[in-house]
Amino acid sequence: MPVAGARMAAEVAEQPAVFDSIVARRGDLTSVADLISARRPRFALLAARGSSDHAALYAKYLIEVLLQLPAGLVSPSTTTLYGAEPDLSDVLYLSVSQSGGSPDLVAATEAARARGALTIAVTNTPASPLSDAAELSVDIKAGEELAVAATKTYTATLLSLYLLIDAVRGGTGEAVAGLGELAGQALDVPIDEAVERYRRIERMVTTGRGYSSATAAEAALKLAETSYLAARAYSGADLLHGPVAAIDADTGVVAVTSKGRGGEAMRDVVAAVRERGAEVLAVGSGAANVDAGLRIDVPETAEEVAPILEVLPLQRLALALSLTRGEDPDQPRGLNKVTRTL
Amino acid sequence: MPVAGARMAAEVAEQPAVFDSIVARRGDLTSVADLISARRPRFALLAARGSSDHAALYAKYLIEVLLQLPAGLVSPSTTTLYGAEPDLSDVLYLSVSQSGGSPDLVAATEAARARGALTIAVTNTPASPLSDAAELSVDIKAGEELAVAATKTYTATLLSLYLLIDAVRGGTGEAVAGLGELAGQALDVPIDEAVERYRRIERMVTTGRGYSSATAAEAALKLAETSYLAARAYSGADLLHGPVAAIDADTGVVAVTSKGRGGEAMRDVVAAVRERGAEVLAVGSGAANVDAGLRIDVPETAEEVAPILEVLPLQRLALALSLTRGEDPDQPRGLNKVTRTL
Repeated sequence: MPVAGARMAAEVAEQPAVFDSIVARRGDLTSVADLISARRPRFALLAARGSSDHAALYAKYLIEVLLQLPAGLVSPSTTTLYGAEPDLSDVLYLSVSQSGGSPDLVAATEAARARGALTIAVTNTPASPLSDAAELSVDIKAGEELAVAATKTYTATLLSLYLLIDAVRGGTGEAVAGLGELAGQALDVPIDEAVERYRRIERMVTTGRGYSSATAAEAALKLAETSYLAARAYSGADLLHGPVAAIDADTGVVAVTSKGRGGEAMRDVVAAVRERGAEVLAVGSGAANVDAGLRIDVPETAEEVAPILEVLPLQRLALALSLTRGEDPDQPRGLNKVTRTL
Repeated sequence: MPVAGARMAAEVAEQPAVFDSIVARRGDLTSVADLISARRPRFALLAARGSSDHAALYAKYLIEVLLQLPAGLVSPSTTTLYGAEPDLSDVLYLSVSQSGGSPDLVAATEAARARGALTIAVTNTPASPLSDAAELSVDIKAGEELAVAATKTYTATLLSLYLLIDAVRGGTGEAVAGLGELAGQALDVPIDEAVERYRRIERMVTTGRGYSSATAAEAALKLAETSYLAARAYSGADLLHGPVAAIDADTGVVAVTSKGRGGEAMRDVVAAVRERGAEVLAVGSGAANVDAGLRIDVPETAEEVAPILEVLPLQRLALALSLTRGEDPDQPRGLNKVTRTL
């Protein structure tokens, strides 16, 4: 009889070592990065589902800010349901999927390649239908993931995307040197107070801005799928546009606040949430800079790589809440690892 | 002392007349459509927040499927927070905002115009900073909206975007002829059973696929901002990728199911949700085609314009639930009509 949550716990704990190994093999990405540079794409499209969609959101920010290319998240269904056939010459098309097995992503990637895009599969499964469908592929090298809730494959995808995009602009991965050690520190930060506070909560809102929007989205998904909370994410800007009205003293609010422009822009968001009577848990290297009732500090990095660390205590929070509430995150109700949608 | 919800109710009821007037003045869009065609854009970007972001999601599907152009939703913060300056020549940049007053959209639109994009503001306020910032503008002509929850400006935006994009491809608006009358019918469909069922519910999930993804997103926002429910939207495909695990018998699930490919693809989603013990309310012209416990039928249209009608009974549901629960949707807690984010 397996111990509840043992798989998820083990994979969360592996992340520092996974980061070290990915950073050490940064050179493996050079050939793909050089081919991207040589093709001089004008536009980037990203296709993904679930946690990988949050990794794609992170990559969208990286591409827009670091490569100065407009980028958009694809709806695979415009191809798979409606047969759209746009001209994709000059388009960099990144398909992100840990399993590489989602049939709709495979079909959308095949279609994009046929329409002239430079297609790149980013997966944890180099021998997968998605890697076959794409012209080039990147192996995130996270090792096999057994838990149903994606943890190490999520962060390994972020890190691989960062290193790839950084290499395209001629960078040397400086911002992630030593990231494994910082990840170890981020995983050691106490989360007991937050677990105690949220053990009976039924609704949570997560929020972040800029790069950290991806962290907010991933944290909400992780909480929803392991603890069966009603958890949803908003960009800080969107939250103020309406949904803040639904926040009250019974809502747990997680504000992702790393040092940098995204975290600074969260000050007003946190203030507005507190006016609604809700308690705020600030998570990130800039947690001390906002007026929150609870805080989880995360080691500081360059803002553009902060999402790789910020999510670590939030994975632990999802795991701990799930166990405290008598659930087993390794046996979530009604979930399969690969979902077959068309 | 105003009657609770009177403003929202009046504006919901105005929609058939608003549609008639927009359709009758379709010709006003011709010059903008011709200029878009003449510039032969290669990509489209859409910038918006809140309800307008859902209108932008709808337009993204229209642009990809009807114009065969790749399209993406913009994160204004890559410009406003991080100063990204991508090359946007050959890009059609649509900024959608009923007020035309959001400073971050104005700044992002000014930046896009300076970087070479063809910028078009779609607003209900022709004399607005956003209309000034963009090269061209489209007036959705919904009349002043007094209620805080956007209803007629949302659907008027969808309809205006449809007519604009249809005109770019040389269409004549055939799919929306008579839409006002159908809207009247859609607003007459009884919703009492759904109101009774959800009057005490605390969490709802809304879901749709393809064009109807936008309806699911807008319905969740409307429910959250007027009834303070924990409501969130998932594309049907994403729902099966994880969040379905958080659905149980206490979750109200709204499945948007119009006739067409998106609605057909919802069959498996509805089946998976019902396996979790949740009751499903199917809303749309294809509601009879899925195995749902509750149904709100909507008159049939071409699939690509179904979102303009599907949302109408969902606006009524949000209004009725708000009143039944003792709230006043015209006085939502903590909401302003224009939100100032940077």
